[in-house]
Amino acid sequence: MSSLDELPLRPELRGRTPYGAPQLQVKYRLNTNENPHPLPPELLADLGEALGHAALQLNRYPDRDALELRRDLAAYLSRTSGEAVEPAQVWAANGSNEVLQQVLQAFGGAGRTALGFTPSYSMHPIISAGTGTAWVDGHRREDFSIDAAQAAAQVREVRPDVVFVTSPNNPTGTAVALETIARIYDATDGVVVVDEAYTEFARTGTRSALTLLPGRPRLLVSRTMSKAFGMAGLRLGYLAADPAVVDALQLVRLPYHLSSLTQAAARTALAHTEALLATVDAVRAERDRIVAALPGLGLTSVPSDANFVLFGHFADAPAVWRALLEHDVLVRDVGLPGWLRVTAGTTEETDAFLTALGEVVREQGAA
Amino acid sequence: MSSLDELPLRPELRGRTPYGAPQLQVKYRLNTNENPHPLPPELLADLGEALGHAALQLNRYPDRDALELRRDLAAYLSRTSGEAVEPAQVWAANGSNEVLQQVLQAFGGAGRTALGFTPSYSMHPIISAGTGTAWVDGHRREDFSIDAAQAAAQVREVRPDVVFVTSPNNPTGTAVALETIARIYDATDGVVVVDEAYTEFARTGTRSALTLLPGRPRLLVSRTMSKAFGMAGLRLGYLAADPAVVDALQLVRLPYHLSSLTQAAARTALAHTEALLATVDAVRAERDRIVAALPGLGLTSVPSDANFVLFGHFADAPAVWRALLEHDVLVRDVGLPGWLRVTAGTTEETDAFLTALGEVVREQGAA
Repeated sequence: MSSLDELPLRPELRGRTPYGAPQLQVKYRLNTNENPHPLPPELLADLGEALGHAALQLNRYPDRDALELRRDLAAYLSRTSGEAVEPAQVWAANGSNEVLQQVLQAFGGAGRTALGFTPSYSMHPIISAGTGTAWVDGHRREDFSIDAAQAAAQVREVRPDVVFVTSPNNPTGTAVALETIARIYDATDGVVVVDEAYTEFARTGTRSALTLLPGRPRLLVSRTMSKAFGMAGLRLGYLAADPAVVDALQLVRLPYHLSSLTQAAARTALAHTEALLATVDAVRAERDRIVAALPGLGLTSVPSDANFVLFGHFADAPAVWRALLEHDVLVRDVGLPGWLRVTAGTTEETDAFLTALGEVVREQGAA
Repeated sequence: MSSLDELPLRPELRGRTPYGAPQLQVKYRLNTNENPHPLPPELLADLGEALGHAALQLNRYPDRDALELRRDLAAYLSRTSGEAVEPAQVWAANGSNEVLQQVLQAFGGAGRTALGFTPSYSMHPIISAGTGTAWVDGHRREDFSIDAAQAAAQVREVRPDVVFVTSPNNPTGTAVALETIARIYDATDGVVVVDEAYTEFARTGTRSALTLLPGRPRLLVSRTMSKAFGMAGLRLGYLAADPAVVDALQLVRLPYHLSSLTQAAARTALAHTEALLATVDAVRAERDRIVAALPGLGLTSVPSDANFVLFGHFADAPAVWRALLEHDVLVRDVGLPGWLRVTAGTTEETDAFLTALGEVVREQGAA
């Protein structure tokens, strides 16, 4: 075996390590914001039938434009946002990561710049680097919220080609006000990507950036079926925007990027939207239970519109992370000093997490 | 709707059209080199079971490193090439297009250059452009073969970071001698990608570039399950190389890029390798029948090691393409003046193609 140092690797990749949370065999895996609820039995039955049907034609290339899937995704977005979304406004790929990579290939790339308000989804700068796009960290307040005036001023100064706004933000949890997004949009000539991966978990009254789409051809709203739909293993991300944006993404997408199985499974899941999203309320209740229990442990959290909670403040968060792992609870150290992130899932998981956390806090006096 | 011209698209994408053959509803679709043989019934049964099992865990992220799939792919390559290939040497993605995109992200990109011997797989320059990699056309002889000395000299002169050698070449059909590949490798400090998408169809005695891997850490051999395995709808491409190359690709791959369904279906198909590859001999026989029939029509072909034949020579190939379409036969106009490409599939397809071609040649006096 050769060494990586001996290969003609791009210089900026040298010394890097692959992205990814540890895939450990732990009883309570609360580190990747998966939905722990198994798929409903009636969906599993329909999936078996749909996948079996798709397999009959597996020797043929899939529908390159995924027209039927995009029609179903548009119908779901229209129904839940109150904003009419046409199939021509929707694009889908293997996870929202691939959607975002295509966005950067079309609108970012070498000689161009992306800006995101960190801390945020750590793949945004990584995918930017992977497409040769320069990255600039945007400012947040101490409480992790975005100051609209400051954000707009920074965007005017930096002049990024792509701006990321994660709402609800990951790993901090809070949704961004639509007025803030509109002000950022007005401050740039680039595209603005609102990453709404967790939006279905938002607190009541939160409105989707989909409602901002009319009249804003440079606004892109990305979504995923990994979280609220509980289909992380499917890898289906999507985006709504002006049809011209979808045309642009088709210039850079790899042909036949979405397999026949992916298209069939996603469409089947969308036909069971009601049953799948029934778990969302249960997850939100667990999230709120975690939030409510933290002060009793001398801890606090950042307001969450997602299926996770950023909690602290710890003198030594990595020590707490290790201690929780010893209690068979895997949470995420997202690299924010003093904070850890926990996924909200089942009642049993919340119980296990809060019990373990209580013991760790007592043991370590960590809070 | 906005116009694409009003969006801040990368300048080099302006005026482009998306890659892809027409997806037309024609009786005989002989334009994308699909395998027309349906999957064996026992594989379909096992696929149903495996996909149903995978669906039970679809709320969880897939195995990010696809370890079991890579082990199965390594076993397949070892068994068929006679060259021991370890799982750590194998990488997989959503189609060989995604594998090649990752290769270019790691070893190409802005400020770097790729070279391929055109005419060849048209996605090579497109994926290069999508990753910001400059492209240089390599030379071929008039008969579409590669002159080893000339190729090595050009590579020494251009100093590309990535060299593509398609073997068997698409769209012309002929496999490249291993000595030629070795000379090209010795002429460059960059990586050499041998795209063996069609290699299972090669004429008897053709050896895979896998046998060149020992001692050549910059040599990469890509494969696909779309062609010989008859799984174009699955989107499973893979690559064998030095383990350090796989380490490099993991720095640029999107995490969880391969869905649980893709991994499960690919592993199931690999367990049925014998049954799947049983169609290869039948397809090769049809290819040879096409080749043998062409001189009787006053036509010729390029020697083929693939499941397609480049045939001609026509005064007006687009007119022949249109006339064949009127006979319900869809072939591919690959943009080579005087030539068209036809996929070899079932006996019925060959009969329909040769009958239609005979009529068209008589009608048009096209040959």
